[in-house]
Amino acid sequence: MDDCLFCKIIEGKISCVKIYEDNKFLAFLDIDPVNKGHTLILPKKHFETFLDMNEKELTKIMLFTQKIAKSIVNGTKADGFNIMLNNKRAAGQVIDHVHFHIIPRFENDGFKHWSHSSYKPGEDSKIANEIKRFL
Amino acid sequence: MDDCLFCKIIEGKISCVKIYEDNKFLAFLDIDPVNKGHTLILPKKHFETFLDMNEKELTKIMLFTQKIAKSIVNGTKADGFNIMLNNKRAAGQVIDHVHFHIIPRFENDGFKHWSHSSYKPGEDSKIANEIKRFL
Repeated sequence: MDDCLFCKIIEGKISCVKIYEDNKFLAFLDIDPVNKGHTLILPKKHFETFLDMNEKELTKIMLFTQKIAKSIVNGTKADGFNIMLNNKRAAGQVIDHVHFHIIPRFENDGFKHWSHSSYKPGEDSKIANEIKRFL
Repeated sequence: MDDCLFCKIIEGKISCVKIYEDNKFLAFLDIDPVNKGHTLILPKKHFETFLDMNEKELTKIMLFTQKIAKSIVNGTKADGFNIMLNNKRAAGQVIDHVHFHIIPRFENDGFKHWSHSSYKPGEDSKIANEIKRFL
């Protein structure tokens, strides 16, 4: 895509700090990391969102992600990591080229997870039925 | 695993509000949702963490996840969603059976993403080189 920042990075028109690439995917450092070593993983083929991805890329991306996550843990001596994908603006997607974040985590690094709520009696089954209508 | 909560749910020994299952994976509602419709996706085979998952499950899990995410968006009328995986305690993993969260998101639902920092000159390349040593 001509106007896609990540396509330009994939094509080498904009530089990045690359971790690894194969014929299908690229991994490079997020320039504004949550923790140092925070890496983005993306298919070289342009898909706007996760829901647009095709089977060929979907079947390979977690193998690639696992390989990179292992290296991040070893290279940053992390105590854990998060894999995160933001789908559409409401979820924090800023660049419209699907990408996963791998965020190395350290004991007591202070990042808090979102607060949880609970269902009223019967509300969970009702929502599940709504979702199941679209399977 | 005898003492694994999620294995017991998979075996039907503990109930859940199921969304869908196939021969490899199960999707059910998180009992303490960030937003209503928050769903967990897990392999039926017990793997403690993402790094323990084998190729067979890794190649299939995102196809399954995409199918469920589409239904969640349609069933909850969400404006977007996050996919999240917490690997080890430091990253918020509470149950030691690998699982992805799909969290439906709504415009202005108020959940904030973690703050970002930046690299000092040269620091990013140094960290990338450390990570690349372990590829």
